Amino acid sequence: MDSNYCSLGIDIGGTNTVFGLISSSGLIIKKNSLLTESEKGPVLLFDRIFEELKIWNQELNNQWKLKNIGVGVPNGNYYSGMVVDPPNLGQSWNEIDLVTLVKNYRDIPVKITNDANAAAMGEKFYGAAKEMKDVVIITLGTGLGSGIIVNNSVLYGHDGFAGELGHIIVDPNGRICENGRAGALEMYVSAKGLKYTINEYLDKYPNDVTLNEIKSNGFDGKKMDQAFDDGVEIVKEIYEFTGNMLGLGLAQAATILSPEAFIFYGGLSNAKHRILDYTKKSMDKNLLSFQKGKIKLLLSQLPDGEAGILGAACLHKD
Amino acid sequence: MDSNYCSLGIDIGGTNTVFGLISSSGLIIKKNSLLTESEKGPVLLFDRIFEELKIWNQELNNQWKLKNIGVGVPNGNYYSGMVVDPPNLGQSWNEIDLVTLVKNYRDIPVKITNDANAAAMGEKFYGAAKEMKDVVIITLGTGLGSGIIVNNSVLYGHDGFAGELGHIIVDPNGRICENGRAGALEMYVSAKGLKYTINEYLDKYPNDVTLNEIKSNGFDGKKMDQAFDDGVEIVKEIYEFTGNMLGLGLAQAATILSPEAFIFYGGLSNAKHRILDYTKKSMDKNLLSFQKGKIKLLLSQLPDGEAGILGAACLHKD
Repeated sequence: MDSNYCSLGIDIGGTNTVFGLISSSGLIIKKNSLLTESEKGPVLLFDRIFEELKIWNQELNNQWKLKNIGVGVPNGNYYSGMVVDPPNLGQSWNEIDLVTLVKNYRDIPVKITNDANAAAMGEKFYGAAKEMKDVVIITLGTGLGSGIIVNNSVLYGHDGFAGELGHIIVDPNGRICENGRAGALEMYVSAKGLKYTINEYLDKYPNDVTLNEIKSNGFDGKKMDQAFDDGVEIVKEIYEFTGNMLGLGLAQAATILSPEAFIFYGGLSNAKHRILDYTKKSMDKNLLSFQKGKIKLLLSQLPDGEAGILGAACLHKD
Repeated sequence: MDSNYCSLGIDIGGTNTVFGLISSSGLIIKKNSLLTESEKGPVLLFDRIFEELKIWNQELNNQWKLKNIGVGVPNGNYYSGMVVDPPNLGQSWNEIDLVTLVKNYRDIPVKITNDANAAAMGEKFYGAAKEMKDVVIITLGTGLGSGIIVNNSVLYGHDGFAGELGHIIVDPNGRICENGRAGALEMYVSAKGLKYTINEYLDKYPNDVTLNEIKSNGFDGKKMDQAFDDGVEIVKEIYEFTGNMLGLGLAQAATILSPEAFIFYGGLSNAKHRILDYTKKSMDKNLLSFQKGKIKLLLSQLPDGEAGILGAACLHKD
């Protein structure tokens, strides 16, 4: 009876780790969130996850049999099972053979992938990308992550490192990122990028009341959106700039991938049409004629924090 | 006896059309080349091809049974079977339902794709990409064409228009192409792009003897290569610039696709290391740390004009 089998989907982030038991039809049977406490390393985190799993098993009267485990983690490599140099997780997560580590807790099939790919799988199986065979899912968080679906499968490339849209170059003479590369997309389109832009505007207009208020509130996105809705010109300019850069980046990706849609989730995507209307215009301007007007920009249809665990749980469906 | 079945592979170019009978193991049984005479439209071309086929059949005593037909043609769409707005073929080739047209000659399975994808299939099945599951094949001809292999299949995107590396933007403020877009890769890296660069240098140095000689010889690539080997500084500069732009474009593609290699063929690829050494350096400079030094730049291993027909004949192997 396959219906009583389930998967454990784990989505590890810099701050929180979400994990859940997922049925083969995508029902979330149990779900919880823990602080990742990344400085303490992966063992302590998985100790806590498997402790919780015991409790769930009792609560569920052992009705569900765990068949496999999928993990989405920054810089998790699908092919090697390793986590290497993960952004926001620090040194105690570097060079970790995560598949082996997890198998020590439960010796069943374990697969890992990076967090953006896991979320892409979630959207592909249960969200806005359900009917699409070629689609790109973009996380607008601290950085810009992406998971690319080509012909119904995640695009991994020959070594598992494909799909890094945040790092394509949109301005060869532009902002320098921590890797020393100039003009990467996420230096413009992400929480980090937006902060950079606001600071640049504050250098030019140090007395601007709105921007100073937004900055003193920790670069609050909701305040930005509100100011945009109130018609504050400088905020509109900043969103237009951000949307234009995103559109240029998407056009690059579309010229290579020709996806049916780009689907957005994550903090900055809450700005919605305020940025994406500019993005659409800029993308279409930079596309070849036979692609113009044909590629959709959509928002994720999954509840916050669920795409990652649903997608991680799908890793064994390949 | 499957060994007596063969495919007809056709590679249609702006000037020449090559076609051949290919065995299932990739043996070229018969091969010929015709002038495309594109202004006369597709019917006249296929009349001549199928006329030749009759002669071949007699010569071969009907030993080989034709099982299917594959065609590589500029802007040929794998999904729709249509040729739309093909560069270098002109108006009489626009909006042609090529699959239906070919089936009128012989009612067996017919598939088409664009010329660069056909060549990529040839390299994948019989050439330098044989052992690779993720690889990009680039034609450096009048323009820059590309065929992208992801997970052993051609990357088509949702509509068959994926894989246009020649049109990714490497300089948002750069040269304007016929589509009105700024800074596309092929405006720098192709016969067309090189001509542009030489003319720019001639604007700056109108009396340069070498460049004037190269221009008056119809921008002869062999003369460029010779001058490079002789250490002519201005030619080295031009190749360095061209190689740098190509490297920047490849880094963009690799950030998205992470292929095992880029494989080059076509006229400009005869410059070989003279351009590709600069390209490698520039690509690695623009890659993320975990990709640096890992992606190969290779030259095609197939005889001139064979990749296209071999690959077209493979279209039914999918």
